[in-house]
Amino acid sequence: MVSKKILDNLTKSSWTRAMFEAGAKLRQEFGDANVYDFSLGNPDIEPPQVVKEALKKAINSDIPKMHGYMSNAGYPEVRAALAANLRKTVGVPLEAKHIVMECGAGGALNVVLKTLLDPDEEVIVLAPYFSEYLFYTDNHGGKPVIVNTDPETFQPDPQRIYEAITPRTKGIIINTPNNPSGVVYSRQTLEKLAEKINEREKEFGTKICVISDEPYVKIVYDGVEVPSVFSIFKNSIIVNSFSKSLSLPGERIGFIAVNPLMGDTTSLVDGLIFATRTLGFVNAPALFQRILPESLDATVDVDAYRKRRDMLYEIITEAGLECLKPEGAFYLFPKSPIDDDVAFCKAALRYNLVIVPGTGYGFKGHFRLAYCVNEKTIINSQKAFEALLAEYK
Amino acid sequence: MVSKKILDNLTKSSWTRAMFEAGAKLRQEFGDANVYDFSLGNPDIEPPQVVKEALKKAINSDIPKMHGYMSNAGYPEVRAALAANLRKTVGVPLEAKHIVMECGAGGALNVVLKTLLDPDEEVIVLAPYFSEYLFYTDNHGGKPVIVNTDPETFQPDPQRIYEAITPRTKGIIINTPNNPSGVVYSRQTLEKLAEKINEREKEFGTKICVISDEPYVKIVYDGVEVPSVFSIFKNSIIVNSFSKSLSLPGERIGFIAVNPLMGDTTSLVDGLIFATRTLGFVNAPALFQRILPESLDATVDVDAYRKRRDMLYEIITEAGLECLKPEGAFYLFPKSPIDDDVAFCKAALRYNLVIVPGTGYGFKGHFRLAYCVNEKTIINSQKAFEALLAEYK
Repeated sequence: MVSKKILDNLTKSSWTRAMFEAGAKLRQEFGDANVYDFSLGNPDIEPPQVVKEALKKAINSDIPKMHGYMSNAGYPEVRAALAANLRKTVGVPLEAKHIVMECGAGGALNVVLKTLLDPDEEVIVLAPYFSEYLFYTDNHGGKPVIVNTDPETFQPDPQRIYEAITPRTKGIIINTPNNPSGVVYSRQTLEKLAEKINEREKEFGTKICVISDEPYVKIVYDGVEVPSVFSIFKNSIIVNSFSKSLSLPGERIGFIAVNPLMGDTTSLVDGLIFATRTLGFVNAPALFQRILPESLDATVDVDAYRKRRDMLYEIITEAGLECLKPEGAFYLFPKSPIDDDVAFCKAALRYNLVIVPGTGYGFKGHFRLAYCVNEKTIINSQKAFEALLAEYK
Repeated sequence: MVSKKILDNLTKSSWTRAMFEAGAKLRQEFGDANVYDFSLGNPDIEPPQVVKEALKKAINSDIPKMHGYMSNAGYPEVRAALAANLRKTVGVPLEAKHIVMECGAGGALNVVLKTLLDPDEEVIVLAPYFSEYLFYTDNHGGKPVIVNTDPETFQPDPQRIYEAITPRTKGIIINTPNNPSGVVYSRQTLEKLAEKINEREKEFGTKICVISDEPYVKIVYDGVEVPSVFSIFKNSIIVNSFSKSLSLPGERIGFIAVNPLMGDTTSLVDGLIFATRTLGFVNAPALFQRILPESLDATVDVDAYRKRRDMLYEIITEAGLECLKPEGAFYLFPKSPIDDDVAFCKAALRYNLVIVPGTGYGFKGHFRLAYCVNEKTIINSQKAFEALLAEYK
């Protein structure tokens, strides 16, 4: 009954899922406290108090039709509040008409790709990548073209991207702060990339849209700058969610913002609204739209994540692992001590360490640690890392 | 920047939307109270009290990670409660493992079609139809094949469907109670249809999935029976939402249920979960899943809808319109007094009546009235209908 493509995908394992399931088995056998599961990016820090208060207020207000349909683009007052809030950082004159509310960033990305892609157009994806990008692109008839970032810094390589652009390139997905590397792409790199894209656009007479997936944009440390994509790339779209910044991943609330510098954005926004409707999202969940105006200045306790990053970074580097210290998101992406990252992650399971091979992110020889877990798990993992790494000395 | 197909769709007008926009203009000019807008199926009856209480309880409980990710299929306890509730009516041994929670029925239908369809497979859609079915099918590479229902009763015509089935037919979407006709498909018709489908499945050596879209299954009147699709069609999937039964359309909460009589449903359910994830839905909104176990026996005040149906039916038939009196949903689908239903609906605007041509539902010569509006609007519309119809006498 199931389509051949889906059946085929089911037989290929998702590494994150496979590792999470291995972890679940370990927890059954050894108990929660004795398993160090760094496999899932599920925020464990609670939403900010202002979000909780706004939810209570909204529910108690009992406004008629508050759970009803609204415009497919979202509530006008929510789009206006969000545009005003984003104007503070994006450096361009964003308005409500440039915003479409969406069911999370995953929904938003599907809507964007559906709207942009003609059959067999190409989308450049930078490795290491969030593996869903490949499925999202394929869903709408596009071809993902994978380009590696610099293997030492995980910064995009503008020259490599230039070489990968063809007349069929419709978009480039960038994700900064990055999952899985945690790296924040630098202004210098992005400006260089913009030049290279402009060159190719002129050469081929095409438009290439930079699609910036920014769920971790507020989860940054050490005062690092996250450059505004809108001020660097004229043809650009931001997709984002409140899954990480407000710890609401299960509620599927996010948005698309279109760069007003593109000029007439009417047909693009109309296309996004049409795709939101016809892909079956219909609209972003009403209640969680409603609480946004009050919550837009809030962020989860980022310093708690920073502290965990520092703790885990110290543990793994002392155990002998090589790792870039990232300035954002809640992931570390260390080098595997052996080339075969899958074998290494399997070996880790013997020490009740659940970690995900870089192969799952298109980048062999590394592995991902999601440190959105409690501090105790991090502290207790130290002996396990030491014992695991002792095998490779 | 926008794909050719989307641009093309944007130029084609959606009749429901066009009429709603015409209504908005009229409201600006004449004021809300003087416009009789029957264009939108946006429930105006409030959610049941038990839903409101469950929401308050959930929000006040402040359970850690209550807004976090859960399994892509939904909370296990919610799936179990839903399976137990459905077992009372579907007549088959449904279990939690046969349920996947979704972002509304629109999301659910996209997930089902993505999971089932290989390129260029056909999906039979019965006219009059909810026009989104055509987009949903096309999204996933399928070809909609439209088959008219009986023009007098709007019941499916098993012989016509038999003739439309080819070796490439993968599914048939049925929607009962129906949007836009309000008709409930009879047991006799559905049983005959099952026979005809079985014949073709044997002839072609194929499996054809009956996809039953049931958002109005609890909005029925006069004690009419809505036959259980699972007990009639072995290869069948139910998609549903709580948009209408609990008046929560803006919150995007729905589900897929797979008929356990199909035998091994593991790969099918795994496929549905995979498609839920990779289409970017990820999971049905957490909070609205959470309130379901307490809310499953509740329904909005159906008698309020029944009363409106009776009022509007009386008004339009007394004004001279021919209309089948439907036993479900909140729509009437009268015959247009002239063949050109579009011209008739345009004429209606002159009397501040906002109604949608049957052409928008693949069924010319009729028009749709959504009576999920307040009683005053219905009562006040009487003179407008009389004046409009006087033109055609």
